[in-house]
Amino acid sequence: MSGFGGRGVDEKGFLRWLLGELGVEEDDVAYVDGLVVKVDGAAASTSRLPFQTWADFGWRNVAAAYSDVRVKFAEARLLLASVTAPDLGTAAEVVQGVREASQFFSLAYVGGDLNEGRDVVVDVVLVGWARARVGRAPRPGDVLVTIPQFGYTSLAYRFWQMGGAVVERGVEALKRPKPLWPLPPAECVTAAMDSSDGLGDVLWSMARGVDIVVKELPAPREVLEFAAERGLDVGEIVFNGGEEFLPVFAVRRDCPVESPYVSFAEVVPGEGRVWWRGEELKWRGWAYFRGWG
Amino acid sequence: MSGFGGRGVDEKGFLRWLLGELGVEEDDVAYVDGLVVKVDGAAASTSRLPFQTWADFGWRNVAAAYSDVRVKFAEARLLLASVTAPDLGTAAEVVQGVREASQFFSLAYVGGDLNEGRDVVVDVVLVGWARARVGRAPRPGDVLVTIPQFGYTSLAYRFWQMGGAVVERGVEALKRPKPLWPLPPAECVTAAMDSSDGLGDVLWSMARGVDIVVKELPAPREVLEFAAERGLDVGEIVFNGGEEFLPVFAVRRDCPVESPYVSFAEVVPGEGRVWWRGEELKWRGWAYFRGWG
Repeated sequence: MSGFGGRGVDEKGFLRWLLGELGVEEDDVAYVDGLVVKVDGAAASTSRLPFQTWADFGWRNVAAAYSDVRVKFAEARLLLASVTAPDLGTAAEVVQGVREASQFFSLAYVGGDLNEGRDVVVDVVLVGWARARVGRAPRPGDVLVTIPQFGYTSLAYRFWQMGGAVVERGVEALKRPKPLWPLPPAECVTAAMDSSDGLGDVLWSMARGVDIVVKELPAPREVLEFAAERGLDVGEIVFNGGEEFLPVFAVRRDCPVESPYVSFAEVVPGEGRVWWRGEELKWRGWAYFRGWG
Repeated sequence: MSGFGGRGVDEKGFLRWLLGELGVEEDDVAYVDGLVVKVDGAAASTSRLPFQTWADFGWRNVAAAYSDVRVKFAEARLLLASVTAPDLGTAAEVVQGVREASQFFSLAYVGGDLNEGRDVVVDVVLVGWARARVGRAPRPGDVLVTIPQFGYTSLAYRFWQMGGAVVERGVEALKRPKPLWPLPPAECVTAAMDSSDGLGDVLWSMARGVDIVVKELPAPREVLEFAAERGLDVGEIVFNGGEEFLPVFAVRRDCPVESPYVSFAEVVPGEGRVWWRGEELKWRGWAYFRGWG
């Protein structure tokens, strides 16, 4: 496979290379004739959290795919799920979570596959209808808006055994993510991504041919206080979380920003860097085959 | 999960139960608004053959999904593939096989996912357009037709290290299956299935509310001779193979049967049994979580 390989290649680099080879535009969903198709999966050995049941793991994978489709202003309608598991009991629990999620997100669960294997792997397929086509690349002058709920999942990863209201919100968000947020006016949006691998990953992914300057942390006060009380690096907590399934939209500057959205960053001319507090943002989120960057 | 469980439940029993719970008709593909969607996968720990390269394994999974869609008279157009692997090198080889297959079967490879996990799992998604809707249940009076190439894969499973022309045909069919067979006239066909888990599995799956009487073995002379020379049970070789990706159609008796198809069984009133040489067929093909039956 000429052209592929070498040091430092991770999941995202590989996918970028592959999509280039295939002649497909890099995007989070595939568009075809007004259809949107998405496949999104995870293996339990690398992605299941210690407090997730198998049903949670099933739900989480539906939510992750749903979030990717929703942030692109598409309407997911059909769900298929392929489940690999070492035994039928585990598969049945995963499928139960998939079913519960399909009901929650109003998806018709129309089929799937079941295979025996060493790891538990859930691949979720969503098919829907695209209203518009939204890419990943914002334009200079745009502002980035999001729902300022980042940080909970970071805290849950670290402190889930400790409990308490703030941590519990993160645990619940990781067990049963519910990315059913409202959408800003489509005509305002120039680019969109949801945060599955962390806000840092979103920002570095969106900063192609432009720079992004973060103005404030899109995190609730209780998260910032929790971090400050324990001497945690608040940037690490907010930018290097993951699985928030919160949307980040680039919108034209003249568009109104309405609740629950807040403006938190600006897009400026540049060469693909992300800035925070006058320095390059050092957190880049998660990538498989590399880990946290 | 009330209603599910107990002894003797295997992959097919589980899928049947699940589809019933979901209110989805049991079928090999999902139909929606003129669309056909299929997800089909396999884990290497249980499904990769010792002589398959990773690229072969990728190709095989595309071919398996393609066969399922083609036998239903649907036209697959789009391919997405989700690949789980422990390292990027393996993933790249799998993807290479998927790409080669996408070209061979004229599929647009438009996206996918990549995840790190302990097993190698390939889930292939095909989206296409349905011309007609074909189920699994034949009617009394129909005849079953197929392409009489069964047996090669059985021999390859057992004798792949031995070599020789007959075995090599089976090995090649398992490494790079090419289910691009012609289709009989759609108006003649009352039911259709392809053989992925063996001809015995196809026949027992089709025999719902009817009996099926096998009249002759749809196998080439060289396979029958190979089996006879080595004292193999020819029924085992022909009915309990798997991965042939050959089609079995139930057609109305007044329809012509043209090459490469032959008529090999009859559908008669009954209660769901398959007969061969005056006895119930004892081979039932492969099911995960159960093995060969």
